[in-house]
Amino acid sequence: MTDLLSLSEADRLIGASLPLFADETVPLAGAAARILRQDVLAERALPPYDRVIMDGIAVRWTGQHRHFLTAGLQGAGQPPLTLPEDGACIRVMTGSVLPLGADTVIPREKLVEEERDRQGRHAFRLETDYAPSPGQHVHRQGADCRAGERLLGAGCILTPPAMAILAANNVAHPRVTRVPAIAIVSTGDELVSPGAPVENWQIRRSNEFAIGASLARKGFVRQTQSILRDDLAQQVETLGALLASHDVLILSGGVSMGEFDYIPRALERLGVRKVFHKVAQRPGKPFWFGIAQDGRPVFALPGNPVSAASCCSRHVIPALLRAQGAEAAPIRMVRLGQALDPIRDMTRFVPVRLTQDDGGMTTAIPFPMPSSGDFNRLALTDGIVELPPGGATREAGCAVAFHDW
Amino acid sequence: MTDLLSLSEADRLIGASLPLFADETVPLAGAAARILRQDVLAERALPPYDRVIMDGIAVRWTGQHRHFLTAGLQGAGQPPLTLPEDGACIRVMTGSVLPLGADTVIPREKLVEEERDRQGRHAFRLETDYAPSPGQHVHRQGADCRAGERLLGAGCILTPPAMAILAANNVAHPRVTRVPAIAIVSTGDELVSPGAPVENWQIRRSNEFAIGASLARKGFVRQTQSILRDDLAQQVETLGALLASHDVLILSGGVSMGEFDYIPRALERLGVRKVFHKVAQRPGKPFWFGIAQDGRPVFALPGNPVSAASCCSRHVIPALLRAQGAEAAPIRMVRLGQALDPIRDMTRFVPVRLTQDDGGMTTAIPFPMPSSGDFNRLALTDGIVELPPGGATREAGCAVAFHDW
Repeated sequence: MTDLLSLSEADRLIGASLPLFADETVPLAGAAARILRQDVLAERALPPYDRVIMDGIAVRWTGQHRHFLTAGLQGAGQPPLTLPEDGACIRVMTGSVLPLGADTVIPREKLVEEERDRQGRHAFRLETDYAPSPGQHVHRQGADCRAGERLLGAGCILTPPAMAILAANNVAHPRVTRVPAIAIVSTGDELVSPGAPVENWQIRRSNEFAIGASLARKGFVRQTQSILRDDLAQQVETLGALLASHDVLILSGGVSMGEFDYIPRALERLGVRKVFHKVAQRPGKPFWFGIAQDGRPVFALPGNPVSAASCCSRHVIPALLRAQGAEAAPIRMVRLGQALDPIRDMTRFVPVRLTQDDGGMTTAIPFPMPSSGDFNRLALTDGIVELPPGGATREAGCAVAFHDW
Repeated sequence: MTDLLSLSEADRLIGASLPLFADETVPLAGAAARILRQDVLAERALPPYDRVIMDGIAVRWTGQHRHFLTAGLQGAGQPPLTLPEDGACIRVMTGSVLPLGADTVIPREKLVEEERDRQGRHAFRLETDYAPSPGQHVHRQGADCRAGERLLGAGCILTPPAMAILAANNVAHPRVTRVPAIAIVSTGDELVSPGAPVENWQIRRSNEFAIGASLARKGFVRQTQSILRDDLAQQVETLGALLASHDVLILSGGVSMGEFDYIPRALERLGVRKVFHKVAQRPGKPFWFGIAQDGRPVFALPGNPVSAASCCSRHVIPALLRAQGAEAAPIRMVRLGQALDPIRDMTRFVPVRLTQDDGGMTTAIPFPMPSSGDFNRLALTDGIVELPPGGATREAGCAVAFHDW
């Protein structure tokens, strides 16, 4: 087993070989969950004006008056009116600018509206005993940030708050990572598509659907799915066409030591340089990784469903996230709910279901797969935990790294 | 404040008023992350045949032979060959059917290939001292499940493993919840779109982008965005058209007590029945919820960005997930990283950043907003925690409910 690559060495080799995906500008409404590739500076001070934050009246508070004659209505989005004198008020709305000359907002709930006077003007009286604080209910210009302040940095993911910040700072077409076109390919003569008749000795293709769903979860929605027979010439032709039209190839099957496992040969014929083949991990040992002449990565995963899913979660998705220029996310650690034995000279992946307790603790309940072809039980799981090689039994309560499906 | 609705009452009223969204069948490749609306039964026993799980040779293991003459090659996806006699072997691939008459697989790593004999046949010899277990490396027919067994139930989300299970069980067109068409509408004369010139007393619309991103995260990707002026007639006309063409309306702004807050009136003119207006929560008190005559829900959120985002996370998204027919997800609890004071008679929402420690514990670091209009700092947060009304200070270490943006 000493000829097998360790996981950290595989990580290093993938990291050193990966391209950085191209960027593009997109309309803001389509940018959610994409990776930002520019810095965003505050367009102007925030708030950009003294902003009223309650519905009511704006006054200059001197403590001399408790009865205010209305001198106008300051709507949101209107240029500021001017308060004519102490003892006058201007009616204001949440979000409107504070009228010039005013310094304080009295909320509507604290006001008693009085009859119109002879000139038809409204007036308001403060509720008995109500004592406003001078300057209250005004969100001062520049209180939140100065113009030019850096609000978002390249590499951040466009979460809902980040989207609001882009909009508020006039970034109508943010620069983001282009979503790479990914070809997902299953190989194997035993594979039959869902919907087609199946013989007893055949199995239905399923890996592309699981891999496609894992990728889509992380925003990799530009996908094509194909199926390849165990035929070297056909593989070379189809893979060549896919390489020409996609940024990434993800294969499953055809990388073991079987007689018909032609994938490494087909890829080498197409000039895809093998970076490694076989990693000290179970399941997933036959994982193959290479780089095409123009730098496009090719991930060739074992065909076994649990192996393919584990390699996708542990290797492919983190690599693609990195290639998007995303800030590296820390590995998520969870608490093991039951003891698990490591493997002496290999990293072990075990499917787990996560449970959250009422105190904020996340526990991983192992669902060891008696055979790596049994994936029905995977429906109950959320991802895999990773046990580094060797050492003693990892007891319940140990912290282990988790990777979601 | 006693006239304000409690959160649990708001939950109950929304739950009682919501429709169940329609279902549809879709091609499997497009079903990822959708909500399943059918049960899925095992198409056949799994594995459907005695499945070889190592590359090597298949033999009938009697312990009598350590040298095997090859009688053929059993590829994956081929009907089973027959082993002619004890002492013969058939070369097998991972995933192929076990040849008839064989019971055991010897992996290739344990074999020494011998020269062809005079008839041109290969032969294999077992490595010295290697002792196979009878029956090894065969995944027996039906070991994983019986035909007809229920594998997935209506209401589950189509995770990557669930997608593999659909494919493997011949569900080429699963029945799933139709993605509802959602209109996201901002109102307010002070709002200017990103990219347009802005005056000092105006602010840029941002709520639709944050709300749209929150919805998209949960799979609600059929969205339109509109902006409404503070003009009752225009609001009635535009909202009427949006109601006719969307399953859900989500408004922000225009629901406070301001002079131009026409939204409740506009909706009532359109026959949208008010279910409630104002909830005992801060931020987000002016939240309005109603149901159109044909049952379509209308969520009218306050226009303030932090209020709108909090109402979206706490009320809108959970309601829409329920209306999809999804199994109810448990509320996520997290540990408070710093003490927070509740509000006496209102539920308090506080933006938080989640941090995961190396032992599996999730801690929420509060980012209280000095004004609910300050959303730059929200970029650092992951969602809100919810503090029920009253009671003592919630100390660091307390468990609180969390809702992601």
